[in-house]
Formats: sequence, structure tokens, C-alpha cells
Amino acid sequence: MTSRQTVTIVDVARAAGVSKSTAGRALAGAAEVSARTRDKVARVAAELGYRPNQLARSMITGNTQTVGVVVPDLSNRFFAEVLQSTARTVRKHGYEVLVSSTEGEPELERRAVETLAAKRVDGLIVAPLDGTDDDHLRRLAEDGTALVLLDRRAPGVDRASFVSANNIEASRLAIDHLIRLGHRHIGIISEARYDPALLDVTEPSAAGLRPSAMRLAGYLQAMTAAGVPTRPDHVMHSAYSSAISYDATRTLLRTNPEITAIYCTDNVLSAGAFAAVQDSGLRCPQDLSLIGFDDHEWATLVRPRLTAVEQPTEAIGVAAAEDLLDAIATPARPPVTRLLAAHLVVRDSTAVPRRQDVD
Amino acid sequence: MTSRQTVTIVDVARAAGVSKSTAGRALAGAAEVSARTRDKVARVAAELGYRPNQLARSMITGNTQTVGVVVPDLSNRFFAEVLQSTARTVRKHGYEVLVSSTEGEPELERRAVETLAAKRVDGLIVAPLDGTDDDHLRRLAEDGTALVLLDRRAPGVDRASFVSANNIEASRLAIDHLIRLGHRHIGIISEARYDPALLDVTEPSAAGLRPSAMRLAGYLQAMTAAGVPTRPDHVMHSAYSSAISYDATRTLLRTNPEITAIYCTDNVLSAGAFAAVQDSGLRCPQDLSLIGFDDHEWATLVRPRLTAVEQPTEAIGVAAAEDLLDAIATPARPPVTRLLAAHLVVRDSTAVPRRQDVD
Repeated sequence: MTSRQTVTIVDVARAAGVSKSTAGRALAGAAEVSARTRDKVARVAAELGYRPNQLARSMITGNTQTVGVVVPDLSNRFFAEVLQSTARTVRKHGYEVLVSSTEGEPELERRAVETLAAKRVDGLIVAPLDGTDDDHLRRLAEDGTALVLLDRRAPGVDRASFVSANNIEASRLAIDHLIRLGHRHIGIISEARYDPALLDVTEPSAAGLRPSAMRLAGYLQAMTAAGVPTRPDHVMHSAYSSAISYDATRTLLRTNPEITAIYCTDNVLSAGAFAAVQDSGLRCPQDLSLIGFDDHEWATLVRPRLTAVEQPTEAIGVAAAEDLLDAIATPARPPVTRLLAAHLVVRDSTAVPRRQDVD
Repeated sequence: MTSRQTVTIVDVARAAGVSKSTAGRALAGAAEVSARTRDKVARVAAELGYRPNQLARSMITGNTQTVGVVVPDLSNRFFAEVLQSTARTVRKHGYEVLVSSTEGEPELERRAVETLAAKRVDGLIVAPLDGTDDDHLRRLAEDGTALVLLDRRAPGVDRASFVSANNIEASRLAIDHLIRLGHRHIGIISEARYDPALLDVTEPSAAGLRPSAMRLAGYLQAMTAAGVPTRPDHVMHSAYSSAISYDATRTLLRTNPEITAIYCTDNVLSAGAFAAVQDSGLRCPQDLSLIGFDDHEWATLVRPRLTAVEQPTEAIGVAAAEDLLDAIATPARPPVTRLLAAHLVVRDSTAVPRRQDVD
């Protein structure tokens, strides 16, 4: 696009015998230009192979018909599916989507947001990383840019809508299922760390907590509500890596043999935990029940098939797209929060616990 | 970004007491502006919260420091991994990446390419779909836009570099492995259809053939080279869907019980074929060997672990990025073709065939 032979609006105007601004308005379909001139300019533009400069067009229409989406990890199926659903929704309204993946690095998130802003997208959907200062997002929102936060709130940004699964309720579904089966020693593999304050967290007030912390809160709250004591040593921290989750799960099973069930709170951790259970010598589900998180391509290919909490990725993608389109159309509209219900898909990796040892 | 309060270069120039063009050159770091002026303009720009308009900057530097990547399906792990590697490589050189997914629809590919072109990216990496007329890509390349084709050539586009796995050789690895084990009745699940002309196809001359056709060619050629007759009824067509691949595999096993091994030629087809084998009543690998394609998160979680052809996604991503950066830096450079070697990861889903029936 830096070619010196690029045909510009000036070339089109000259060939059509009109002024540059008339040519621009004609191509934008402006009503004040006669139909005859519009047709002529369009014909000349096609003949010359003119490719409209979107910024030039946006200076006329105020709209580039593109939106940006910024996610931490495109190889995570959750984000890939939400993105697909978002793209499908905005395309129905004539918008194109440009995507950036930030690979979990706050500096890349800041650059991705700035790149898209500089490209004059009409709005942005961002799944912010933990550990960023959120200044770049706050500034965007204060500038009046349509912004929807996905999956995680950003504490300093109160002028953006928010779309996510209801993560506290998602965990409650998993834990209630295990407790109903009779489990009382339930471990959790989590990117968050044990914190008794999570017992009092509620969704609407939880600005800034990561999804993993919300899911850990849901675990602690569901256990407590059922009268099952929670134990810090049953909360096993793992970084966002299935290899690390593998080690964390092996460690948890070794140090806490009383555990009869494990709940993993994300996509990437579930794969490592499943492999660890396979290699542990324990039979699943007879000796150990396992619940994963998110829809996995492999959930029905493995044996036992994996019981998992599934987020409503399709609905999350649609909701984020619709909120963004609303914000573009009506900048003054107050931001909304939408928490969508996850559901539990019970397959074969959960069962009644083995005979309880005395603890 | 369509906010009316946006700070422009004119505001910065006025506040810094310089002309608009001096302000622009100062922010671009141009040498003809004094260091003192550059510092002053930069300070004023920061105070005002000026966000550079990349197009304005690109009109000065001729470079927007962004590249576009267009792929058919981001939920396909192959593309997600190549993209990650490409992004990492170009970022080292100061470039940002914008991605579009075309969901297998030629019209969306055309729009994605045009959107990115209109955003003035410095170059594009495109994995083109089959069934497009490639005009949009040819036009781009002829306009002098840096363009690298990924995974599939585009017949009408001879001014773009091409990076892919060597698909004929990839299939040869799989088939040679099965033949060495003693298999002679080897089925293939493929997005391509049987065509005897594929026996004579070679990689360098195969412009326009899809990867799946190249892989089918490799299968036919490896069988023939080993003196094993190929049979049209052992080539089972499946659309790009694991559900359809499931049905195709079940059908193939039912209509051709002499088959002792199946080879799947892509990521999505492998999952359906694996599930079909599980449900077929055949023991894998004792009754039936199975080879998948691409690295799967589940390859080591399932039992038997999946033997698979793995593409060098990391190297493909790096090569595409480097070729694009070269083409941006040196527009006159002739296009290059790079075919990177896949490798076979032998796990537990392949073994010697069951006692051969007479066919």
C-alpha cells in the first residue's frame, strides 16, 4: 500500500472532471451529489482500479466500518470461538473485524490497542490482561471510543460495557454436582491463589478480579453454602500452562491423598490435569472425579469422557458485538454489564466418591 | 476514534508553536528537525494526549509498521500456531499484526484483504481459500504490496512468495511408515477427491492445488512407489468438518472391511476419524492403525495416543514473517518459495496389521 503507483482520489477526480471533494462525496454516496455524477465517478474509479482510502472515507462519513478485537491468546479455544461469533454478528451489520492477540503480555496489549486506535476502528472489544495499569483503556473510553470489555473488567474503566460468563455461578454448578455425588474433599487447580476474602465476593462488585479468581470464589462459596469446610491446601495454584497444571495436579494428589475430586478452572489447566490423573495410577472416575472448564475438542475423545463447565461462547460473542454496535450508534448510552449463564455438561469423569477415608 | 474531542496534529503544532508539517516530521523523528524541536513537540503531544494518526505518519515515513494476516479459520490450531509465531517474529522488527479470519468464505476473504489494504498495512500474509478467483490478491501484488501466500498458492498470483509445509513429502512419511509396518490396504480421509492426475503432480509445479490435494498426491505417489496398488474406493472424501469426517470414516470402514489403516489429511478430519474408529468396534491399533495430521492438544490425552504428521508451524510462521519483511524492505526482490519439512510423530495408534484377509 506504499506503492508509488497507487491510484488516489485526486486521480479519480481529475479523470472524472470533478473536484476532489466532489469525487470523495460521490464515492461515499452523499445525497448532495447528483446520481449522474455519482455514477460517473464510480465508473472512473473502477476503471482506474481506485481502492478507497478508508481514512479519507471516514473523514466524510465519520465511520470506518471496522471494529477491533484484542484477546490474550488466540490458540485458546474460548477466545477463538467468542471471536468467531462476534465477527459473524458485526458482519451482519456491515462491519469488518481486525484482531490482535497479546500473548499474555501487558505491553503487547497496550500496543495492540494503540495500533487499532490509530487505524481508526469504530470501536474495540478487549479482553484485558491482569497486570496492566488499564490507563490505555481508560483513555480510550474517555475519548469517547466505543469499548466493550470481555471476560474481565478493568478497574479504572467505568465507561465500558462488560460481557462475561457468570463465573461464580459456573463454579457453583461444578461444586454442587460433586457435593451431590457425595464428595467432600474437592481440590481445585486455579490460576488464582487462596484468599478467604473471596468468600464474600459477589459478581457485580468484583471489578478487576480475574475470571480465575471469580471461579475460585464460586468454589469457596459453594462449598461453604453446602456446609463443607474449605481448606487452603486444597487450592492448588497453577500458571497458565498445561505442563504446569500437570505438575500442580500431581503434587496435589500426592500431598492430599484424601481428595476424591478435582475441579479445573480453565481450558488450558484442564488438559494438564487430565494427563496428570491418567498418569497418577488412580482410576477416573472410580478413584477420582475430574471436572474441566470450557468446551474441548478432546472432551468426548478421551476416556472417560470429560465432565466440564461450558461457557456460552456463542452468546458471549453475540452480546459483546451487540453492545459494541449499540455503543457506536449511541455514544451517550450508559454502559451495561451482561453476565451469561454457563452450564455443566455431565459426561463420564465424575461419579460417587470411593469409600471415604477418615480425615 | 470518531470522537469530536480527538487531539489532532494541528492542535499539537499550535501548542508547540511550529507548523503542522514540522510537528509531523518531529513526531516521525525526521533528521531535518532539530533535537530541541523534536523534544518540545513530543512533550506537547504527550501533554495533550495526542494519539498519532497512523495514516498521517505513514504519509511522512511511507510505512505504517503494521502487517495483516488473513487465515480461513482461527479455531484451527494450525493457523493459530503459525499466527503466533508470525506475530512474534514481526514484533521483533517493530511491527504490529492485524488478523482477519475468513471462515472459509471467499467473499469474506476478499473483504478482509480490502479492509486491511484500506488500513494501509505495509504487507499481507494470506492463506487463500479455494474457490476464490484470486483477482483481489493479484491486484494487490501488482500494486506492489508486499504479499506472502501461506499454505496454498493462488494460481493467478506470481508476484508473491509462498511458504508451506512440503505436503507431498508429509504424506510420504505417513504412508511409508504404514507400508513398513506391513499395511497394504490403506484408506485416506481427504478434503480432496481421487484423481489419477495427482500421481504426476510435483510440489514446485502445483500452483493452485490445495494442501489436501497435495497430501492426497503424496499418498498416491508413496503407495505407487512402494508397489502397492492405489484404489479409488480407498480415497474417502470429507468436507472440512469433524462430524462429516466421522461419517466418512464409518462409511469407509463399513464398505471396505479389507482396510487395515487410515490416514487423515488434516486437523479437523482427524478428530472425527478418531471418534469413528472408537465407535467402530475395531481395536486401534490391533485391528486398525490410524495416522492423524497436525499437532493436536488431544494427541497424547487419548488412548491410544495418536500417531500424527506434524507440520513445522513455528518455522512456517517465522518464514512467512521473514519473507514479508524482506518484501517490504526490498520491493524489487523476486518472490521465493519455501517448502518446509513436516515430521511424523509415532505414538501408539499405529502397529503391524491384523492378519490380512485375501482381497
